[in-house]
Amino acid sequence: MTSAIEPHKARRLYLLLRDQITSGRLPSGERLPGEPVLAAEHGLARVTVRRALDLLASEGLVHRRPGSGTFVQGPAGTRPVVGDLPNLLSGLIAMGRATGVRLLSFEYVAAPAAIAEALLLEPGERVQRSVRVRLIDGQPFSYLTTHVPERVGLSYSEADLAATPLLELMERSGIVADRGTQAIGATLAGPEVAEALDLEVGSALIDLTRVVFDPSGRGVEHLHALYRPDRYAFQMDLVRTGDAGERRWTPASARPTKPAHLSAKPASAKPETRPRPAALRRPAP
Amino acid sequence: MTSAIEPHKARRLYLLLRDQITSGRLPSGERLPGEPVLAAEHGLARVTVRRALDLLASEGLVHRRPGSGTFVQGPAGTRPVVGDLPNLLSGLIAMGRATGVRLLSFEYVAAPAAIAEALLLEPGERVQRSVRVRLIDGQPFSYLTTHVPERVGLSYSEADLAATPLLELMERSGIVADRGTQAIGATLAGPEVAEALDLEVGSALIDLTRVVFDPSGRGVEHLHALYRPDRYAFQMDLVRTGDAGERRWTPASARPTKPAHLSAKPASAKPETRPRPAALRRPAP
Repeated sequence: MTSAIEPHKARRLYLLLRDQITSGRLPSGERLPGEPVLAAEHGLARVTVRRALDLLASEGLVHRRPGSGTFVQGPAGTRPVVGDLPNLLSGLIAMGRATGVRLLSFEYVAAPAAIAEALLLEPGERVQRSVRVRLIDGQPFSYLTTHVPERVGLSYSEADLAATPLLELMERSGIVADRGTQAIGATLAGPEVAEALDLEVGSALIDLTRVVFDPSGRGVEHLHALYRPDRYAFQMDLVRTGDAGERRWTPASARPTKPAHLSAKPASAKPETRPRPAALRRPAP
Repeated sequence: MTSAIEPHKARRLYLLLRDQITSGRLPSGERLPGEPVLAAEHGLARVTVRRALDLLASEGLVHRRPGSGTFVQGPAGTRPVVGDLPNLLSGLIAMGRATGVRLLSFEYVAAPAAIAEALLLEPGERVQRSVRVRLIDGQPFSYLTTHVPERVGLSYSEADLAATPLLELMERSGIVADRGTQAIGATLAGPEVAEALDLEVGSALIDLTRVVFDPSGRGVEHLHALYRPDRYAFQMDLVRTGDAGERRWTPASARPTKPAHLSAKPASAKPETRPRPAALRRPAP
């Protein structure tokens, strides 16, 4: 084993531990394994482990108590917001959280092939492409890239988009969002996104793609959204339905006209008196 | 600018590009930006960019054509499976995909505090903890850690769990899974999970936590699942409901007794004749 610090391996371990702390899997107060254990587990030199712990300590995510070990301090700032998945923004507004937006770009371009196909565009039809960063309580939490057919995009201005949610603008203009398809995955932050979301390159992000159609089946919006998982967690309630042998999960959130149902609420670091939020805490790995 | 290769920076760029290729954001046939452009974009030396491209080429994810550039080849093997989120496994079975499981561990332990709280356990109540890797067509795609109260866990054996889905075992024993709460995020693969899922450490994973309750409100299962996003994408259909000013998205998948509704199907690299799957393709960044 070498005793030279390997800064990029230290960075990798730092990112992994940071991810576990900000996600709550390593809860505040938890004692981290000792340096020799971390070194063996990750195949690293002890000095490299120490460097990773130094980085965490400099961010206030761990605290070292000489003689007793390294303890998780948890992120002091923004906590994940627990929300109903498709109605994220209206959920945040309903719970009175201050949201903001930064419009990073706004332009009309030839439709990329994948977008043209997804939105069922006519050949040669152009699109409005915009990139926005959404903030909650002043902190960036999502990076949104939208493509909208030119005929829809022209119904509002760049200034409108910098102030008002896109679906609201469209619905004001008489465009009817009727149905959509949504896919969820995970991805790594590249340099541009990392900078916009105030993150390290290589951090994990929730990746959501939604395509929205009007009642005639024409595409009206293609959204690609990236979310910081340490600032937002998607939640849904499920009920188990069906006869024996055919039992399955059904979303419990199909109550469209009752705003009180919006279960979005700030997650708290304190124990809850209600059982539901506690269900979201994860075990230490 | 230095001309020395920096292997860990090369690895980071390799991971980012790999993620974009396997997710389909860099589609097969797409020409990558030239080495000078990638070098400037990521703040790296050209030799470091070349090393990252070498790694991708050695995996067959890109192809270099001398004089014309580097082209994405896309992953030849398993494609993402598009599925209904809460009923992943039954969806896969309904579409005739061969699924398998590896039971990595099975033990009875004292309940970690977060688990005891989530499942509303009695003080001192023990749990069965198991770790499984689920395979589709012989390839690992999910890493599942479950905690089940001892009274529930004793209704089946280790051999049962290595052969049969957990909820099915519980329901056979007369335990009623009545409702649940599910949260979705994203995380980075650590060494253990990366090895089990045949991935690089630091890859992005979908992170799902589900807690299941019986009709009396007692917790019967705590599931923490990690999914490879290049082998699985969660999909849901949405409909827009409600009056003007109160419009919101509602899940369209609440049709519990109709197995044909299971929209899980293999995503194809070829253009589809139906509009829906195309909606999931993402634009090049």
